[in-house]
Amino acid sequence: MFVTTHTVYKTFATEQRRAFVRITEDVQDAVSESSIAEGMVLVSAMHITAGVWVNDDEPGILEDTLEWLDKLAPPSWRPPANDVARELLPDSGDYRHHRGGEDNGDAHLKNLLVHHQVVLPVTAGRLDLGPWQAVFYAEFDGRRRKRLVIKVMGE
Amino acid sequence: MFVTTHTVYKTFATEQRRAFVRITEDVQDAVSESSIAEGMVLVSAMHITAGVWVNDDEPGILEDTLEWLDKLAPPSWRPPANDVARELLPDSGDYRHHRGGEDNGDAHLKNLLVHHQVVLPVTAGRLDLGPWQAVFYAEFDGRRRKRLVIKVMGE
Amino acid sequence: MFVTTHTVYKTFATEQRRAFVRITEDVQDAVSESSIAEGMVLVSAMHITAGVWVNDDEPGILEDTLEWLDKLAPPSWRPPANDVARELLPDSGDYRHHRGGEDNGDAHLKNLLVHHQVVLPVTAGRLDLGPWQAVFYAEFDGRRRKRLVIKVMGE
Repeated sequence: MFVTTHTVYKTFATEQRRAFVRITEDVQDAVSESSIAEGMVLVSAMHITAGVWVNDDEPGILEDTLEWLDKLAPPSWRPPANDVARELLPDSGDYRHHRGGEDNGDAHLKNLLVHHQVVLPVTAGRLDLGPWQAVFYAEFDGRRRKRLVIKVMGE
Repeated sequence: MFVTTHTVYKTFATEQRRAFVRITEDVQDAVSESSIAEGMVLVSAMHITAGVWVNDDEPGILEDTLEWLDKLAPPSWRPPANDVARELLPDSGDYRHHRGGEDNGDAHLKNLLVHHQVVLPVTAGRLDLGPWQAVFYAEFDGRRRKRLVIKVMGE
Repeated sequence: MFVTTHTVYKTFATEQRRAFVRITEDVQDAVSESSIAEGMVLVSAMHITAGVWVNDDEPGILEDTLEWLDKLAPPSWRPPANDVARELLPDSGDYRHHRGGEDNGDAHLKNLLVHHQVVLPVTAGRLDLGPWQAVFYAEFDGRRRKRLVIKVMGE
């Protein structure tokens, strides 16, 4: 079979600074539009302070995860959550990245932990996910327009 | 060349709750069956409490990694390993996700750290890995049937 | 369209034990050589103590990230940075992996956090990245020859 590709861009502007936005259906729509039956779909944040996560669409988990990420990759624009968060901040107490006027150093580290992209299988024209797998755009520095690219490739 | 795809599902039911299962040969078998010479292979857990990791097949590392993951993403069904693990638990002491009767909140966070999928290169019909790279299915909430999908795509 | 693939290997030998090496242009060069207009490019370290990260090419962030990774995945060949790093070391004080004479246990855990590969979109013959996204080879146990594979696939 010949190879086909299909590309879709999505824009987000979350009200909250940090948020998980479910995009499973957007990804499936891109797959359906592509008419690709067998292949892979790349879902990739186009920013350095956002990510893509595949997990359970259960509010408790998403809230747990944001609390936990704030300990592992602590913001410096508010008091650290506890001693672990304090010690995981830079030794100087603030990110070197903030010298230029930014305040989102933590969001870059959250991007590292979550990863900015995933590749998902497409089988018989459908996202080939397990029953509990949902796809989320993970925003760590929102309240402004940010973009994500979905690229489907296959036969 | 035309594009070809080949899909294989594997099922795991680990005896331990947490385990690394070597699957390098399973992935190579899927590549060989596909007759694809050049391309990529996606190896993806179909669960939200499992992952796929490429690292060294050395028992010390795997044991180190499980100990370390239990500190970073601590279970709440046993006493925290130390103060860091205690502080990385939710502030309330238990995961919000457990309100519904689950006890695997830590496994969701381990899934985030390890990531649920990898994409590997295929060159001349072989997995194009470095000499020490082995592929592992990483189970964080086992003792039941769980699935993984391997999808090869290329020419 | 027919599918095309193109494979390039890069070799690194960093002077520092840990370093981020910008490779955005190397990846774009591989894409350009391939003549592929639409597809995906896999960028994958061939080692278990290195990774690939897409983030901001801003020296402060890269320094912040190395400091932070040394707390989360602490080396045992120097005193831990603080109490968090001390507690994230194995309980015995050293990695089991070091029984065989190695001293790079921390680099394996940094590989896990950063991940050893990324897949990037190719659109109209260009890496389809956001304006601030740069691609880095992340070395955690350098000062020797190490390899990375870039594989472009598409139409």
